[in-house]
Amino acid sequence: MMKPTQGQTGSQARPQGLSRRRFLAVSAGGIAGSAAAESALAESLADVPPREPGDPMSATSARSKYVDIARVPESTPGHRNVDPAEAINSKTPLQKLVGSITPSDLHYERSHAGVPEIDPAVHRLLVHGMVRRQIVLNMDDIRAMPSVSRVAFLECTGNGWENWKSAPSDVTVQNTHGLVSTHEWTGVPLSFLIDLVGVDRNSTWMLAEGGDGAAVARSVPLTDEIIAEGMLAYGQNGEPLRPAHGFPLRLFLPGFEGNLNIKWLRRLKFGDRPFMTRWETARYTQLQADGHARQFQLRQDVNSVITSPSGMMRIAKGYNRLTGLAWSGHGRIVRVEISTDGAATWQEAELGTALPKAQTRFQSHWVWDGQPTRIVSRSTDEAGNIQPDRATFIARTGTNALFHYNAQQTWAIDAEGNVRNVLA
Amino acid sequence: MMKPTQGQTGSQARPQGLSRRRFLAVSAGGIAGSAAAESALAESLADVPPREPGDPMSATSARSKYVDIARVPESTPGHRNVDPAEAINSKTPLQKLVGSITPSDLHYERSHAGVPEIDPAVHRLLVHGMVRRQIVLNMDDIRAMPSVSRVAFLECTGNGWENWKSAPSDVTVQNTHGLVSTHEWTGVPLSFLIDLVGVDRNSTWMLAEGGDGAAVARSVPLTDEIIAEGMLAYGQNGEPLRPAHGFPLRLFLPGFEGNLNIKWLRRLKFGDRPFMTRWETARYTQLQADGHARQFQLRQDVNSVITSPSGMMRIAKGYNRLTGLAWSGHGRIVRVEISTDGAATWQEAELGTALPKAQTRFQSHWVWDGQPTRIVSRSTDEAGNIQPDRATFIARTGTNALFHYNAQQTWAIDAEGNVRNVLA
Repeated sequence: MMKPTQGQTGSQARPQGLSRRRFLAVSAGGIAGSAAAESALAESLADVPPREPGDPMSATSARSKYVDIARVPESTPGHRNVDPAEAINSKTPLQKLVGSITPSDLHYERSHAGVPEIDPAVHRLLVHGMVRRQIVLNMDDIRAMPSVSRVAFLECTGNGWENWKSAPSDVTVQNTHGLVSTHEWTGVPLSFLIDLVGVDRNSTWMLAEGGDGAAVARSVPLTDEIIAEGMLAYGQNGEPLRPAHGFPLRLFLPGFEGNLNIKWLRRLKFGDRPFMTRWETARYTQLQADGHARQFQLRQDVNSVITSPSGMMRIAKGYNRLTGLAWSGHGRIVRVEISTDGAATWQEAELGTALPKAQTRFQSHWVWDGQPTRIVSRSTDEAGNIQPDRATFIARTGTNALFHYNAQQTWAIDAEGNVRNVLA
Repeated sequence: MMKPTQGQTGSQARPQGLSRRRFLAVSAGGIAGSAAAESALAESLADVPPREPGDPMSATSARSKYVDIARVPESTPGHRNVDPAEAINSKTPLQKLVGSITPSDLHYERSHAGVPEIDPAVHRLLVHGMVRRQIVLNMDDIRAMPSVSRVAFLECTGNGWENWKSAPSDVTVQNTHGLVSTHEWTGVPLSFLIDLVGVDRNSTWMLAEGGDGAAVARSVPLTDEIIAEGMLAYGQNGEPLRPAHGFPLRLFLPGFEGNLNIKWLRRLKFGDRPFMTRWETARYTQLQADGHARQFQLRQDVNSVITSPSGMMRIAKGYNRLTGLAWSGHGRIVRVEISTDGAATWQEAELGTALPKAQTRFQSHWVWDGQPTRIVSRSTDEAGNIQPDRATFIARTGTNALFHYNAQQTWAIDAEGNVRNVLA
């Protein structure tokens, strides 16, 4: 360790996609090689606070008082900043997050009868229907079983509905896209449970019911994919689920719409047809352009959004790093393209670690010339799905529906650098 | 979606490593196919709380009141449950975590002058020494630069010192191994900064200095690996660093001892030799068996521990899931073996996702016959390093040192099922 190999510094370590020369040439702040740097140095020596012993060790580490980061409770589309008691969801602050993981307390929340506080000691899961033997499991039973962990996104099927019919100009990306988050989830493989209770091989659907006041219940098709990837989840990001996310137990089905991932899971019933609960005959159907309703559109499609710069931010002329998130219920993200000229031309963005059915961070480098323009991203997944532009999406789906909006998100930038939500 | 392919249920979905038959045969609770299951069903219908609207949406989701999970502040080895004001670290509750990610507020903490609360608006990073141009960066400069995210462990070099010389029998795995955690870290690649300031190609070391009262400062060798993997980190698990973990900026060097990952980073100086701070001439040297001190033993070695069952738990006769964590500063974990007969025989455990230099979850299935025994794990990394047993470790290092303890951890189980820490 005392003698590292010679000649390994600087010149061999090229940053990806952006050279030092280019960064220095374009960075708006003129951070290096300038008189400003010298004055900043002097300033830094004067301004550094005196060194004193800091706060003592603690049982949990809190956020800095200088960090302002929180979800926003909302009610129906277009009703923002509502009384929390009237809110039906609480959205993730995508514009303030980095990387791919969402902190547990900032994972988006959507429920139909608020958040029950369930005692895990009395909670039970009934498994019945087309099974060899019905059983009732308690949480100790479930935690004693084999478990798996997986990083994956969860998304409310209503994510993006802000922009389905009109584009409010005063929204942030938290308002437009804040109903998607990514966690490491831990739980018992659904396949293990199916084997344990001896599900009849003629069973093709499973009813999952929640223990909240609304008793949300959904029919889940028993496809190979769902059997292989589904889990009875009790952990999020290493810790027990939080009540807002289903404590002590929820269904987790990577890639499928949020409401199918039943929270406060109390019952699984196996059958040979869908159970046609009101949640799938009325609530979560899609009204098509021709007036017919579409049922069981369950998978979340390929999607992406630029999170910085994004709605209500202001940028400066010169260098700007563009970054955002892409995800798909079909598998891995393989490509994200960015346009800085209103979808006329596209450049491929750099991708971070791309896990299947997980949010993937992308970034790109841009020199803004100060002219009004529009920026937009589009993603492609490993199944070959390409995120549609809005005109294509609307031509295909009409404007009667509310769910599974995955059109490209455009941000307009005016001459002052103000970034605003637009339809394009 | 309405017609899933037929014949995909149950029988094709074999759980790994543990069949239904075996689980039913051995599970201690007798959870299925028994009279107990029927009575539990009746109980569940009576006990489920009435369905009422739950709590409203919130800005951040809190933990359940039924979940008891926290770090423990400690002082020097053997001094547990101390006044937090006297604590020098706070340890992660490994026995209560699932998966691989550590929640941000439960990441272990170790500092030398408490936790400073630094205003990011006045924080500066000075970069100087053998560079083409010294610069001073503010946090806006740093956040505007290209960034990377990576899941990796961080470990205090003192982790495990509880067991170096003696084995207190009343400790948990939080006491013995709680100075290691795993996060998704986000920041600017060290390689980008090196290129930006034009580090002299004859520079082989870098001094990193923290902004806390203790001004911890360490010399970092500029190896290919450190240049390629090091980062100036400002994010943990998607959010800004917390003050206890270096807000607003820390050095992060995957695989290298915790104190090298300077928190509250305020200065980087490039040179052509180690800077010989007191932290490396006195504090973090290793006293060898022959009385000489070893400097710059920087890499964390291959390690593992069974987290459940572990110290101070009690198990029942019959089926027990064994689970734990393995990690190595050399790269990926490729194998974990478990012995349930005091290291006489070994079985390979199932591994979860094994990322390089990240904690990797393992599990195994065991039927305890009620006889006193000892359980132990040993891990192997991709570089071929095998975690040593304690006798081998002590023979190699003696008992004068305090750091880089990575010997196998043995838990003794008595006839009543009590699990206790022992040296073996």
